[in-house]
Amino acid sequence: ENVTLGHHCILEDGVVLGDNVYLDSNTIVRRGVTLGADSFVGANCILGEYQMDFCRDRSAPVHPLTIGAHALIRSNTVLYSGSSIGEGFQTGHHVTIREKTWIGDHVSVGTLSDIQGNCRIGNYVRMHSNVHIGQLSRVDDFVWIFPYVVLTNDPTPPSENFVGVHLHSFSIVATGALVMPGLEIGQDALVAAGAIVTKPVPPYAVVVGNPGRVTSDVRKVKNKITGEPVYPWRHHFKTYMPWEDSDFQRWYDGLDLAG
Amino acid sequence: ENVTLGHHCILEDGVVLGDNVYLDSNTIVRRGVTLGADSFVGANCILGEYQMDFCRDRSAPVHPLTIGAHALIRSNTVLYSGSSIGEGFQTGHHVTIREKTWIGDHVSVGTLSDIQGNCRIGNYVRMHSNVHIGQLSRVDDFVWIFPYVVLTNDPTPPSENFVGVHLHSFSIVATGALVMPGLEIGQDALVAAGAIVTKPVPPYAVVVGNPGRVTSDVRKVKNKITGEPVYPWRHHFKTYMPWEDSDFQRWYDGLDLAG
Amino acid sequence: ENVTLGHHCILEDGVVLGDNVYLDSNTIVRRGVTLGADSFVGANCILGEYQMDFCRDRSAPVHPLTIGAHALIRSNTVLYSGSSIGEGFQTGHHVTIREKTWIGDHVSVGTLSDIQGNCRIGNYVRMHSNVHIGQLSRVDDFVWIFPYVVLTNDPTPPSENFVGVHLHSFSIVATGALVMPGLEIGQDALVAAGAIVTKPVPPYAVVVGNPGRVTSDVRKVKNKITGEPVYPWRHHFKTYMPWEDSDFQRWYDGLDLAG
Ligand SMILES: CC(=O)SCCNC(=O)CCNC(=O)[C@H](O)C(C)(C)COP(=O)(O)OP(=O)(O)OC[C@H]1O[C@@H](n2cnc3c(N)ncnc32)[C@H](O)[C@@H]1OP(=O)(O)O
Ligand SMILES: CC(=O)SCCNC(=O)CCNC(=O)[C@H](O)C(C)(C)COP(=O)(O)OP(=O)(O)OC[C@H]1O[C@@H](n2cnc3c(N)ncnc32)[C@H](O)[C@@H]1OP(=O)(O)O
Ligand SMILES: CC(=O)SCCNC(=O)CCNC(=O)[C@H](O)C(C)(C)COP(=O)(O)OP(=O)(O)OC[C@H]1O[C@@H](n2cnc3c(N)ncnc32)[C@H](O)[C@@H]1OP(=O)(O)O
Repeated sequence: ENVTLGHHCILEDGVVLGDNVYLDSNTIVRRGVTLGADSFVGANCILGEYQMDFCRDRSAPVHPLTIGAHALIRSNTVLYSGSSIGEGFQTGHHVTIREKTWIGDHVSVGTLSDIQGNCRIGNYVRMHSNVHIGQLSRVDDFVWIFPYVVLTNDPTPPSENFVGVHLHSFSIVATGALVMPGLEIGQDALVAAGAIVTKPVPPYAVVVGNPGRVTSDVRKVKNKITGEPVYPWRHHFKTYMPWEDSDFQRWYDGLDLAG
Repeated sequence: ENVTLGHHCILEDGVVLGDNVYLDSNTIVRRGVTLGADSFVGANCILGEYQMDFCRDRSAPVHPLTIGAHALIRSNTVLYSGSSIGEGFQTGHHVTIREKTWIGDHVSVGTLSDIQGNCRIGNYVRMHSNVHIGQLSRVDDFVWIFPYVVLTNDPTPPSENFVGVHLHSFSIVATGALVMPGLEIGQDALVAAGAIVTKPVPPYAVVVGNPGRVTSDVRKVKNKITGEPVYPWRHHFKTYMPWEDSDFQRWYDGLDLAG
Repeated sequence: ENVTLGHHCILEDGVVLGDNVYLDSNTIVRRGVTLGADSFVGANCILGEYQMDFCRDRSAPVHPLTIGAHALIRSNTVLYSGSSIGEGFQTGHHVTIREKTWIGDHVSVGTLSDIQGNCRIGNYVRMHSNVHIGQLSRVDDFVWIFPYVVLTNDPTPPSENFVGVHLHSFSIVATGALVMPGLEIGQDALVAAGAIVTKPVPPYAVVVGNPGRVTSDVRKVKNKITGEPVYPWRHHFKTYMPWEDSDFQRWYDGLDLAG
């Protein structure tokens, strides 16, 4: 299986590691974890971290954590048991992801980010550093979330009535924006840095300020260096994306949508 | 004493662990630490972390750290020597708490939170993820603090004249709000998400915006799902609270306030 | 060489440690690292962390990391290979500093701070907790950056056209302020807590609000406790500074600027 282990790694019984997995020193992999082939895990990580039931009772059923192939999980990251993560997953350092998180393929979660569990992240989602995803959040495919963004869920805290934020495909939430509970951020919308979003955001809208106001349409925004249109970004940006080798339209036309 | 130790734990001389304590792998407990019975400590924690005197001089007097019974301290958390923490303490992951922090009973401090020391946290305080508590802060009982809140202390930085923020009982500081130095946030006040609080906040006030303005009274706020009043929250919410099995009024009336 | 190692430290070949270095338990120092004399490194640190080339290929050239004498690096800190850090460097806990970061002398980087690499930090810079320094940032000497500040770099994300923020000497960015890409923050400027800076800031300007507006001149700001002027702060504050034993003017006049 060609697995490489660093010093002092701790592997519990029943862990399944794919071929060519590399675990750096001091990393702990608990029972119930399946890690796909060709994955790299940095030092001091915990895969399959205990949920509350084990912390309270010192015993619990095994809750599986599955991570797809080609993962790159950086040091000091804690991934709870009870989640499912696709292929090509990447994290920065000191990331925490709680149980009942469903993550698609080719997702990147930056340093210090904190995913609170009971939430769903699509494919090709890119989260920068220090993003907080509250429980019940839904992040669709091809969404970009920048540092210090928080998706909230309790409209009148403290309460028992949580509602999750829903970021639609291709939307972008810029640095430090806060999204109030239960709001829909429309496809291709752009939430400006520092915006406090208190109302649903229509597709293609640019939302700015405290409280957030729709001030523009993304299709009017120009790249400050080149003067060219920037959005919809799928037509102008391809790094990390499945159309990296051609362009969005050709990739999209080539999808077998009926199959 | 029925203490369970994970792999590679490091216990220094004179550490006192109560019955049924569980320390997960790689955790370090330094001299001067007393940890109460039935406590669970995750992996990679440091209890009794060195203060500056040891870092500089490589020797220092022992500064005690006492933590009460039934603690649940999650992985990668660093608790400095020289603090006192009550019973039923809970932390998320990657928490840092510096010296001269006094924490009451049944307090919860979320993942990534950063308590800077020289401060006082009451009983039944609930801090979510990524809260920053500046030195000289006072947080009274039954306060809720949400993610990315910062309590500041230097009015005109850099200076030598720090003044601490004081959050009164039952107040709520919502996500991403920043409180300027020395301000009093009154009992039952609600600081809205993203508010920049630049003036004292009266009891029951709702403060919104940049800069923060009093816009409402909490007693007028309705639960968005049920349409019911939400505040004062002690009459409508009981999870984690000492009135969890009855209601606030019955609990309050039953207190032996003279004794 | 009088080096002290804690339990389970991992030192790779070719690491160079100066005299009197102290490495606390579980710390990893990878090949290519040079750490100056009299340095203290807390537990669970990683010095010389792998860049992407090693994570992908499991082999890579050695990228040197040099850290000057008298460093104080606190626990759980991750410093990548490929950077250069001066003397008297201090970090809090859980700090992450990526490759191609150039840091001067007597710099302090607080708990949880995240320096993204490809950036330049001068001498006597003081960053508090949870500061995010985006790639291409330039921070000049004697700058103060407070918690939850973010220096951004992509004006219309996602794009390939990053531009770095430039904080000029003696400027101060208060808690939670966000600086938009490519902006110059002038010498001695003060960015108020929570400001969203969208335009260049002139020297000595006070910028407040969302969006940021110039509202005042720092030389008009008074210390709230003493009533005295506060700024330019170099004339009123000396802790940590090279004029700590006298005053700024005497120190400045004594510099050999031709030599
Ligand atoms: C973390 C990293 O490394 S990079 C992270 C990714 N990048 C970011 O988060 C920054 C993304 N950029 C933004 O959010 C920008 O605010 C945008 C793109 C939404 C708007 O920027 P632009 O269209 O360039 O606006 P422009 O600079 O022309 O300003 C137009 C007006 O809007 C205001 N404005 C611009 N941005 C904002 C903002 N975020 N909040 C409030 N007001 C704003 C300006 O002040 C100006 O108004 P004024 O003349 O009355 O002062
Ligand atoms: C992290 C987690 O997982 S959950 C964290 C806990 N939850 C939170 O932090 C969110 C708590 N909610 C808040 O802070 C809300 O702002 C509240 C409760 C203070 C106010 O919300 P509501 O009373 O529902 O206000 P409502 O939505 O009816 O809006 C009334 C007006 O105030 C504005 N407004 C509402 N909230 C805010 C805010 N936080 N900042 C600025 N303006 C606001 C609205 O835009 C609206 O004004 P407009 O019509 O001119 O645009
Ligand atoms: C993390 C730690 O432990 S400490 C971190 C370091 N300290 C900080 O970050 C706080 C630094 N202080 C600030 O940023 C302050 O906003 C300052 C110094 C720029 C301005 O404060 P002051 O000059 O004292 O302003 P003052 O309190 O007199 O208020 C004047 C007006 O500006 C407003 N104001 C003050 N600060 C701000 C702010 N940060 N944002 C928006 N408005 C503000 C006030 O509301 C008031 O307007 P109003 O009467 O219409 O409401």
